[in-house]
Amino acid sequence: MPQELATFLYPKSVAVIGASRSPDKIGFIILKNIINSKFRGKIYPINPNAEKIADLKCYKDLKEIPEIPDLAVLATPSTLAVEILEQCADKRIKNVVILAAGFKEIGPEGKLLEEKITTLAMKKKIHLLGPNCLGFFNANCPINATFGEPIRERGNLRFISQSGAIAASLFDWCNANNIGLDSFITLGNKAVLNENDFLEYFEKEYQNTLYSEQQKGLSKVKPIGLYLESVSEGKRFLKSVSKISKKDPVFILKPGKTEASAKAMLSHTGAIAGENSIIDAAFSQAGAIRCQTMGDFFDLAKAFSWEEVPKGPKIAIISNAGGPGVISVDAVSETGLELAKFDEKTETELSKILPRQSNIINPVDVLGDALADRYRNAAEIVLKQGNIDSLLIILTPQIMTQVEKTAEFIGYLSKKYDKPIFCSFIGGKSITEGEKILNIAKIPTFRFPERAIYAISKMWEFRKQSIRENIERVEESPKINLNLDEIEKIVRNARSKKQKNLDNLSANEIITAAGITTPATQIVESFEQARSFAERNGWKIVLKLSSPGLIHKKVAGGIILNITNEAQLKEAMKKLEERKMDIQIQEKIEGDIQAIIGIRRDPTFGDILLFGAGGSYAELIADRNLHLLPINTKEAQNLVERSKIYKYIDKMQKTNPIALDKLLETIVKMGTLARILPKDLEIEINPVIVNKDNAWAVDPKIYIKP
Amino acid sequence: MPQELATFLYPKSVAVIGASRSPDKIGFIILKNIINSKFRGKIYPINPNAEKIADLKCYKDLKEIPEIPDLAVLATPSTLAVEILEQCADKRIKNVVILAAGFKEIGPEGKLLEEKITTLAMKKKIHLLGPNCLGFFNANCPINATFGEPIRERGNLRFISQSGAIAASLFDWCNANNIGLDSFITLGNKAVLNENDFLEYFEKEYQNTLYSEQQKGLSKVKPIGLYLESVSEGKRFLKSVSKISKKDPVFILKPGKTEASAKAMLSHTGAIAGENSIIDAAFSQAGAIRCQTMGDFFDLAKAFSWEEVPKGPKIAIISNAGGPGVISVDAVSETGLELAKFDEKTETELSKILPRQSNIINPVDVLGDALADRYRNAAEIVLKQGNIDSLLIILTPQIMTQVEKTAEFIGYLSKKYDKPIFCSFIGGKSITEGEKILNIAKIPTFRFPERAIYAISKMWEFRKQSIRENIERVEESPKINLNLDEIEKIVRNARSKKQKNLDNLSANEIITAAGITTPATQIVESFEQARSFAERNGWKIVLKLSSPGLIHKKVAGGIILNITNEAQLKEAMKKLEERKMDIQIQEKIEGDIQAIIGIRRDPTFGDILLFGAGGSYAELIADRNLHLLPINTKEAQNLVERSKIYKYIDKMQKTNPIALDKLLETIVKMGTLARILPKDLEIEINPVIVNKDNAWAVDPKIYIKP
Repeated sequence: MPQELATFLYPKSVAVIGASRSPDKIGFIILKNIINSKFRGKIYPINPNAEKIADLKCYKDLKEIPEIPDLAVLATPSTLAVEILEQCADKRIKNVVILAAGFKEIGPEGKLLEEKITTLAMKKKIHLLGPNCLGFFNANCPINATFGEPIRERGNLRFISQSGAIAASLFDWCNANNIGLDSFITLGNKAVLNENDFLEYFEKEYQNTLYSEQQKGLSKVKPIGLYLESVSEGKRFLKSVSKISKKDPVFILKPGKTEASAKAMLSHTGAIAGENSIIDAAFSQAGAIRCQTMGDFFDLAKAFSWEEVPKGPKIAIISNAGGPGVISVDAVSETGLELAKFDEKTETELSKILPRQSNIINPVDVLGDALADRYRNAAEIVLKQGNIDSLLIILTPQIMTQVEKTAEFIGYLSKKYDKPIFCSFIGGKSITEGEKILNIAKIPTFRFPERAIYAISKMWEFRKQSIRENIERVEESPKINLNLDEIEKIVRNARSKKQKNLDNLSANEIITAAGITTPATQIVESFEQARSFAERNGWKIVLKLSSPGLIHKKVAGGIILNITNEAQLKEAMKKLEERKMDIQIQEKIEGDIQAIIGIRRDPTFGDILLFGAGGSYAELIADRNLHLLPINTKEAQNLVERSKIYKYIDKMQKTNPIALDKLLETIVKMGTLARILPKDLEIEINPVIVNKDNAWAVDPKIYIKP
Repeated sequence: MPQELATFLYPKSVAVIGASRSPDKIGFIILKNIINSKFRGKIYPINPNAEKIADLKCYKDLKEIPEIPDLAVLATPSTLAVEILEQCADKRIKNVVILAAGFKEIGPEGKLLEEKITTLAMKKKIHLLGPNCLGFFNANCPINATFGEPIRERGNLRFISQSGAIAASLFDWCNANNIGLDSFITLGNKAVLNENDFLEYFEKEYQNTLYSEQQKGLSKVKPIGLYLESVSEGKRFLKSVSKISKKDPVFILKPGKTEASAKAMLSHTGAIAGENSIIDAAFSQAGAIRCQTMGDFFDLAKAFSWEEVPKGPKIAIISNAGGPGVISVDAVSETGLELAKFDEKTETELSKILPRQSNIINPVDVLGDALADRYRNAAEIVLKQGNIDSLLIILTPQIMTQVEKTAEFIGYLSKKYDKPIFCSFIGGKSITEGEKILNIAKIPTFRFPERAIYAISKMWEFRKQSIRENIERVEESPKINLNLDEIEKIVRNARSKKQKNLDNLSANEIITAAGITTPATQIVESFEQARSFAERNGWKIVLKLSSPGLIHKKVAGGIILNITNEAQLKEAMKKLEERKMDIQIQEKIEGDIQAIIGIRRDPTFGDILLFGAGGSYAELIADRNLHLLPINTKEAQNLVERSKIYKYIDKMQKTNPIALDKLLETIVKMGTLARILPKDLEIEINPVIVNKDNAWAVDPKIYIKP
């Protein structure tokens, strides 16, 4: 699709097809929303049976309209979609929203209908939003072309949601909490336009948005919240998110962690979920924050919209109660934040204004009888001292507590000092008015301190990734000479035998050709051949069965380690010969570090490299670290450093150093190999043994995707 | 302390010392709370300067009171505490509450003051609650002897909180949400009375509580919520919690996961935190639920108070939106719950009453235009079919949604069907009235579906543990003949050398004496000695340095594995001899399973056995499973089965079975050994190698606690 969505998001004229006079019909509500949003352009309601709707002249059909409207909104049933879309095309309308449900989410029949409108829109170059959506809202136009609750306040938040219901809940929640929106796109089934069209538009047209007076009290970023059930065009998505996340936070709620939810989604918007850990890796590599719950999503929206992103991890906490203070310290320790350490001057000043029983060390306890003044004085001292990056103020409604006055002081302090302030007022009725005051002052407040700390920690994560070094990405392509014709022949051959993986020796050859070190190995047919191999390569030998069907050799008893003399070899040969399969002999590699390196092909995000702890216990260690390819040495190092096994590697480096550089080289070579090899091959080397000399691909497997 | 708290919790007369006429003084508020709570006994305000307070005759001092009051509440400053407590003792008052702060939480001076009142109370057998607390509330008396917000509704919830502020927040929240309380104890500094006194009372006096009409709509359990910063008398605590948790849920918020929060607590109520994973194990072994956040704590209070505990894990979800439905399925999959599978009849019936586009498979999507009727019809069909244990109803405020009417229907259904129903109405202003209706009907509703699912899953966990088999606990004590005098001599000797652990051979001897199998081993001083050992025990040998200071031998290069012939032995001996330490030779044990078994001594909870994956990667696998001793074979099996390494053991059992029974035996023997050994010794065997023949304690270490 063309990416030019200016006339879509900023139309000068809108036709509402299926406009209605009944106040509970979508065709009425969306018309009213457009009118009430102070849309400055022309509005053409279309209804063959009405003269006027909401004081606007009504038209019989599109043909009757005296101009080509920039946008047509279809509030008509799905059964009329094709016909009306054809009329739109005839009128040369370029932007269309289809609200109706009843397309691919309901099964084969609806799918067919959706294919028809998609084909038609693509052919006529129509920017089609939906179907099965709530429409869109753009405060900068302004236009509210949704059939949701009217949006009360203009702000800096931009949302793109695949679910209309989540939009409805967010509208209601935003209105109740004085949270303003910049724009809100509901995607529905994504027949034509998807998240990428809007993300790219947001990325490029950033300057379009002019802030009004209303924006006071908001943060300087323009956060983007995404609710996605499927990611369309993974690489395009990551490209635009990577760009945006350097200046503006992108936080994503993406369900589908499990097969069951993927199934539920299929019947919802027809989304197909990618594998969860790949999505995690992809989002993180693009600098986006993945929310784990709806609560996370709503909380981050408020936090990013209202408060500046903290410049560092150091948090100060002021509370009128020890308990919630302690709970907060727990929560801080579970994030990347740090409890700020006050300097002596701060402590001295705090001790001057606080009662003797108070705690003047972070978290500050101003005690249960603290009035608003004491909160304010303590907060001013803490805000003035340089060594904090954010302040959390906790209030429990005790008998003397001045909830509203304290909230007002916090509003005042937030204007006076540029450190971001967050609140948690914990209770019920007593704190409601205080919360309202904080909402008006745009101080993010949360029902429990852990929620505030979650939000602050994610803001700090955003800051960290956005200031990540902007080094020129060095592409590395180790030279690999592969005989691709030969490989394809091997794959064809294996496929014809219905093998799910290449045999060991072919896998070994390919890995070796990529410049990755493998131990000496060969297939042996007799004890004599085996002995001669041992005499050539040294008497540290492993024997294993070599059958394409046999993946977990160790568990299947198909591997004999530690053969060091003729007697052992003879015994081992005898044992394996009984299994009537090819026997492979291999030089035994010793080393303390066993890693796994793998290549996966993902339909959404492309080639992915896996690195982690290998060997028998790999599954238990659950050390799966993913990197979306390509990968260079620097990135390989980052990948290794964030693995669990790195703790162990790091320890080894101090006593018995291993060839870490060779491990990184192997990873980079695997990345290149992934690019060259046919796309239906996936690789897993487990273990890669790393010792002081080299990284050895001991047991490479190459799988053929069905 | 005596456990008889009947006159404390059900006093017939109360003296309020420091009663005040100023409405913002604690001495006034607590008096007013007692009066307003409809306390039926005599109230004696004590204030030398007043004739009457709140229409009650005032007394100059305790002596003036015509009877011995059952309870005295001190609303006086900490500085007067000792003096007034003495007066209480003189008056032979048996139950005292001290509200004032200014004791051990403020440092050495306050600690001294607290010691004085503790000693005095103990000597005079006074049940002293506090100091530094908010008082207590008992709806069954009734009496509200707190200076918090008055509690509006009577219910089934019992709370014990070390923090008064958390109590204040809970009161406010309960009042705002129509949640009723049975009793609320704030412990403060626990100078005399602690959680165990009240838990034991609750456990015994269960029948005291007679439910009134008001109790309608509440669940049949009497949940106990505990906020604790420290656990007093761990074993006593676990004993009463274990008993209570068989009938009533016990849910605990216990911060102090980290050193930093432990430090913050110290300055708060002077609590010393136990190690976090030990607390987890202890609570779980006692059948209590540990909350991770304040939100968890509040949510469980509501859920347990209002809804019956689900009889099984099968949850049905009805939503008017696909998105939150999918999110819920994700959340379900992360708990022990299961998405109920509807039978064909249910699906047919649902398809009859729902529009064609609806999803009739769990989670049911009644679509965005669902009115209350459609919700009700779908819910009735689902509630009628037998195959569900709980129902979650999700509502997003879409344009047609009848929020209040739907809430009313849900209230009706909850009365009609005995399946527990939970709700999540997601939004802002539009859903507030609906939430109120649900609160009045006592249907637990949560801002986000994940919170509902959290609560349901914890309720199911409670149910599972409460119906755990009530098998007679078989105590097993394998006979162990240890020369304790000899061991104590070794320990003394090691201590005198400032060693932190016993040398290898002593450790080996003790473990062997406990009947645990260890590989043949000895200290060798020459190659010849080593060769002769190998000839006796077979040519599979390990050499290692044996020094009490050398804990991580493998990392320090102090271990040489796989010695199979004379040449290798000679080389290895030479290498280790350079290190100028004792050299230990050991029979090499081979086996695929490497475990760790350890004994820890905890000051709060006593002896604890650790089991998990061992070997070099133990740290990475992070497989720490704890059991509070004693342990029998059945319990050892449960412990092993919930370890991560069990996945691997289980897989092995199918191909190369290992001696699992020997492993369990070793665990039970370690439990007995822990009981016999001096309490300052801790043990760690890593690895315990398990092969087809036996479980071998390969490298036992015995640490001496400082």
